Amino acid sequence: MSTQHVTLNRSGDKMPLMGFGCWKVENKDAEQLIYDAIKCGYRLFDNACDYGNEVEIGRGIARAIKDGLVKREELFVVTKLWNTFHSKDHVRPAFEKQRKELGLDYIDLYLIHFPVPLKYVAFDQAYPPGWYGVGQKKIQFERAPMHECWSEMEKLVDDGLARNIGISNFNVQAILDLLTYCKHKPATLQVEIHPYLPQKRLVEWVQAQEIHITAYSSFGPGSYVSLTDDGRSAEPLLQNDAISSIAQKKNKTPAQVLLRWAIERGIAVIPKSSHEERMKSNHDVFSWSLDDDDKKQIETLNKGLRFNNPDSYGFDLPLFS
Amino acid sequence: MSTQHVTLNRSGDKMPLMGFGCWKVENKDAEQLIYDAIKCGYRLFDNACDYGNEVEIGRGIARAIKDGLVKREELFVVTKLWNTFHSKDHVRPAFEKQRKELGLDYIDLYLIHFPVPLKYVAFDQAYPPGWYGVGQKKIQFERAPMHECWSEMEKLVDDGLARNIGISNFNVQAILDLLTYCKHKPATLQVEIHPYLPQKRLVEWVQAQEIHITAYSSFGPGSYVSLTDDGRSAEPLLQNDAISSIAQKKNKTPAQVLLRWAIERGIAVIPKSSHEERMKSNHDVFSWSLDDDDKKQIETLNKGLRFNNPDSYGFDLPLFS
Repeated sequence: MSTQHVTLNRSGDKMPLMGFGCWKVENKDAEQLIYDAIKCGYRLFDNACDYGNEVEIGRGIARAIKDGLVKREELFVVTKLWNTFHSKDHVRPAFEKQRKELGLDYIDLYLIHFPVPLKYVAFDQAYPPGWYGVGQKKIQFERAPMHECWSEMEKLVDDGLARNIGISNFNVQAILDLLTYCKHKPATLQVEIHPYLPQKRLVEWVQAQEIHITAYSSFGPGSYVSLTDDGRSAEPLLQNDAISSIAQKKNKTPAQVLLRWAIERGIAVIPKSSHEERMKSNHDVFSWSLDDDDKKQIETLNKGLRFNNPDSYGFDLPLFS
Repeated sequence: MSTQHVTLNRSGDKMPLMGFGCWKVENKDAEQLIYDAIKCGYRLFDNACDYGNEVEIGRGIARAIKDGLVKREELFVVTKLWNTFHSKDHVRPAFEKQRKELGLDYIDLYLIHFPVPLKYVAFDQAYPPGWYGVGQKKIQFERAPMHECWSEMEKLVDDGLARNIGISNFNVQAILDLLTYCKHKPATLQVEIHPYLPQKRLVEWVQAQEIHITAYSSFGPGSYVSLTDDGRSAEPLLQNDAISSIAQKKNKTPAQVLLRWAIERGIAVIPKSSHEERMKSNHDVFSWSLDDDDKKQIETLNKGLRFNNPDSYGFDLPLFS
């Protein structure tokens, strides 16, 4: 199965525009699922400390390499620094723990998961530590400046441990400041993007800074039904009439329409699926295109509706206000 | 005329909730207007390098003090650092130029006007320099990190030149980072707030950090009619039916309703008026209150509509995305 790539700034590495998202991949299924995804053609895997499944994902990767399905250098492994490890003394140990759990010599792309420095939680207290400290009922901030955190991220590049570094859930004000002091520019920004939240101006401006965009939650509310009120009440994009009729016209699935819509904007996508058929189907978005009319119709779905917001989870942090 | 005050963090200074905004005060009128405003009871004046009228405003203040209308310590003078002076070597000279033009020994509150570091423009090239460099047709950024800029702001406090320092047009992500490294927390955040853009969660969260909020553009699109498409096309809030009917019921003006709405949220306001009657009328918002029903009705006007956005001026900077 063919995948298009984008070329990252500084390293010149090729990042696949289609990847496999590991959020909510259950530990018991992770090893086999990743093995199957590799067999199916996936080369990019999007992980995070916070997803709590890096050990099992690492096993899947190791088995696929051992069985000769793929070589390490053909894979593009992404993972993310959690909020509790932003302090300059904690970035490297957190990274090293993740790298070892994934069983890799290097990470292809290491992202700061959120621009939110939370109080440190030691590995033996809780791992992954989540948003609250142990026994706490509200979030507690750590005075860990982003310029110190980013400097540690850059050292991971300089030491050959992370081939690329980037950011996630940052907005323009946070990026503007980062660009004033970074030695290595972020390679990518990963943010929530779907037709309910197209983030047109953010995407255009960030791409103009030579930073590639990865969209998460391409299918909209699906992953948030059990998490937030908006997730429960919003119409699933996979069942939306406009998306469905475009899919029908193109003889594609609604999921393929949503993924193709991002890819045509130069945005990488990282859908997750537990079913081999859907894994294959999600991947098949490079040999056809949307019509201008389709894109215009999808534009009308913009509601400015964001699902992954700490405020919506009740954390009292309006991170996107 | 009585004014309520809020107490600022660290200094304990009392800041009036009602002030006089000097944006768009014409140079030829400024001296007399400020003199009249002081006579009328105004004690807080909101200035900025970018408004280009600090010399004349300083003359109005000086004359009022000389004539015994007011003492310096009864005034609360606010002004703002322009974007082109964020570098650590430029903050102090820019501040000193403004302080001298205003003719004051100290400034009560010095704000960073925007979290946007633009390329330095020397005083003798263009002053105020605006968004573009001399002879440029697009904005050019300067690599001036906010943590270095803020550190210079703090030195102004330590040296007794600025009694308080604060920020303007910052969003939560920018503030979160500032709070990780600041020695002196910002005293205030000045942002656009009106019923079309109530900024509920931003206001609540920032106030919870012990940072006071000042609203600009309390009347909505009025000041932007000649500047942006949204300014031209939005219904003036002063003529909005809901606002007008509340005003009528309360025997107040629509302007008073809009100002009172902010003040009841603990938000300071800085309307501008060139007419003595309106100056007096705008000030008269402390002896009455809105009903709960009024506030509920005003809430329905929320459109997420922002007028003061570099992007709307065509500067290709989606600062609030």
